[in-house]
Amino acid sequence: MIASSGDVRRERLARLRVDLPAHGLDGAVICHGPNVRYLSGFSGSNGLLLVLSEEACLITDFRYEDQAEEEVNGTVEVLLATDGGIAALADRLVDRTHVRSLAFEAEHVTVRDRRELGERCASVLWEDMPPAVEGMRAIKDPDEVERLAAAVDVAERALDEALSTVREGMAERELAAELEYRLARHGSEGPAFDTIVASGERTALPHASPSQRRLAEGDLLLLDFGATVDGYRSDITRTVVLGAAKPWQREIHEHVLEAQAAALESLVPGRPAREVDRAARDLLEVAGLGERFGHSIGHGIGLEVHEGPRLYRESKDVIQVGNVVTVEPGVYLSGEGGVRVEEDVEVVDGGYRVLTSSSRALREL
Amino acid sequence: MIASSGDVRRERLARLRVDLPAHGLDGAVICHGPNVRYLSGFSGSNGLLLVLSEEACLITDFRYEDQAEEEVNGTVEVLLATDGGIAALADRLVDRTHVRSLAFEAEHVTVRDRRELGERCASVLWEDMPPAVEGMRAIKDPDEVERLAAAVDVAERALDEALSTVREGMAERELAAELEYRLARHGSEGPAFDTIVASGERTALPHASPSQRRLAEGDLLLLDFGATVDGYRSDITRTVVLGAAKPWQREIHEHVLEAQAAALESLVPGRPAREVDRAARDLLEVAGLGERFGHSIGHGIGLEVHEGPRLYRESKDVIQVGNVVTVEPGVYLSGEGGVRVEEDVEVVDGGYRVLTSSSRALREL
Repeated sequence: MIASSGDVRRERLARLRVDLPAHGLDGAVICHGPNVRYLSGFSGSNGLLLVLSEEACLITDFRYEDQAEEEVNGTVEVLLATDGGIAALADRLVDRTHVRSLAFEAEHVTVRDRRELGERCASVLWEDMPPAVEGMRAIKDPDEVERLAAAVDVAERALDEALSTVREGMAERELAAELEYRLARHGSEGPAFDTIVASGERTALPHASPSQRRLAEGDLLLLDFGATVDGYRSDITRTVVLGAAKPWQREIHEHVLEAQAAALESLVPGRPAREVDRAARDLLEVAGLGERFGHSIGHGIGLEVHEGPRLYRESKDVIQVGNVVTVEPGVYLSGEGGVRVEEDVEVVDGGYRVLTSSSRALREL
Repeated sequence: MIASSGDVRRERLARLRVDLPAHGLDGAVICHGPNVRYLSGFSGSNGLLLVLSEEACLITDFRYEDQAEEEVNGTVEVLLATDGGIAALADRLVDRTHVRSLAFEAEHVTVRDRRELGERCASVLWEDMPPAVEGMRAIKDPDEVERLAAAVDVAERALDEALSTVREGMAERELAAELEYRLARHGSEGPAFDTIVASGERTALPHASPSQRRLAEGDLLLLDFGATVDGYRSDITRTVVLGAAKPWQREIHEHVLEAQAAALESLVPGRPAREVDRAARDLLEVAGLGERFGHSIGHGIGLEVHEGPRLYRESKDVIQVGNVVTVEPGVYLSGEGGVRVEEDVEVVDGGYRVLTSSSRALREL
């Protein structure tokens, strides 16, 4: 697997090189970290990737000298900038007069950096980057799926261990610390995103950050978190109960699982992504809970925790083999509590494969 | 203290309102998270603060409804955007025809967002934001120093505990997990920055991220990390030895401590910040180690881990009462190992006060 990663990246660069001229571009300057990593292998925080028809180079600084060479492993040339990345880029372009138009990532480049690009590379016509790299990233190759599955596995191991530490009187933040500690112990490079631990009525806040609220008997307890393995991020949610579940808790959990099952069944290659959201929402609407499901059913995961395809109501994406997405319906009763259950799922020929293996049944601690 | 935080922020806004007209501006749109938090108290990830001469409002989204009201606590008005922050901003400005020129943060706003500002707020003249907020932030008030001191305290407690877990054969990443777990247990909201744990010859890499390298007898072991308390970040470094220190290890540690003492003595209000770097560098040059000290002596800390004043060779900043800075000389012998010792220091009348209290002596584990 490792031996072939250089080939995989060379193929990605080759596909980009076909795509750019189709948009009237002579090349592109990529600065968004996940895109740089996807194309070159470089994982440092300061990388600028110049892709031209016949060559590609990564510009970084002295801090990353060894790491960059090791990670790109010959896929692209490495240049160390002494006076900032854009100055080094301009130096590189100075005798490449055939390069007239270059793409840049308008949603990631700051106004200050765009000015510097314009000033230092005055002969270049700067155009918006088409979503070519994001399009490729939405379809995972087997290596990427393997890493995502590993990130799911780490998250599930950490979850089991963290739940075994739960006791009444523990603060949400303490439990979050236990969970993140176990993630790291099992090999996560860092939380995949800001860990959510919410309890009691706070479970009705879909984006609650862990507070000092203390867990009490009868509480719903919601954990939404993920691990990072080789840069790839899992994203799972489980909602459990401290003690015996009350009927209303059991009931909304049931509705959420039914909505999730419907969404999973609609994950079929070739279908519009918005139908996945629709399938879950229809069931919840029938149950009179449509208004209580205030977010979308899911999103792609990979080098970023939110990437393509987007599974929301107005999404124009189409489900494709190789997508890896979350499926995460939720029901939130303001002031009382909420339930969300989230799986990570790979789209395969004719259907789906769930990467998460934890039971979805309502667990009573 | 808490009761007065609204007053502190109102005073900051008042100072900004004096500064903006002096630059020919009718107001400013602040989007950089630490600046938004400094002025309004809001700590969420999606905030846009409009400051005009007679009013100020924070624009965020429904996820932050409760949190925003609680955090700003009446200092500014809160608006919830349904169609994106810039659209809400435009709505707000539509009947404020006296607003002609607004500042925006060119080093933080993306090209895409800048375009949207231009399109939706077509009558506004957009100018670069002067470094007014960053200038205020470089001088801490007593509340801020207290939070930084708390963040130092949490970091030092976590360090002591983490060092007690060190054993031969442990991976750097395992130790980083122990350290971050203890930071969280002592109340850190998250690591202040990416934790550095380096051992053996890897201590010669000033920016090493924790690897799978296993600790061995005789290794230097370098930990550079911090805690976050109420958004304020500490940043400390200690280098220890596993077992008995070798003479060369002891020697470079001595040189580093001497350089640090010299730098501390030059932390005098009114002096050029570059002299702090100079003081440490002079001593290391005399010892023939000037080339082995490849970074600057330090930087301000606060809501960001790197902020003003900057203590590098060409810095134009001047040391002022209320600055809180790191003082972190290092000596790195490629292929052998490195030593860095880093204190967090407040500048006070006539001198300095070290916030870190851990011994600087070379510790043998």
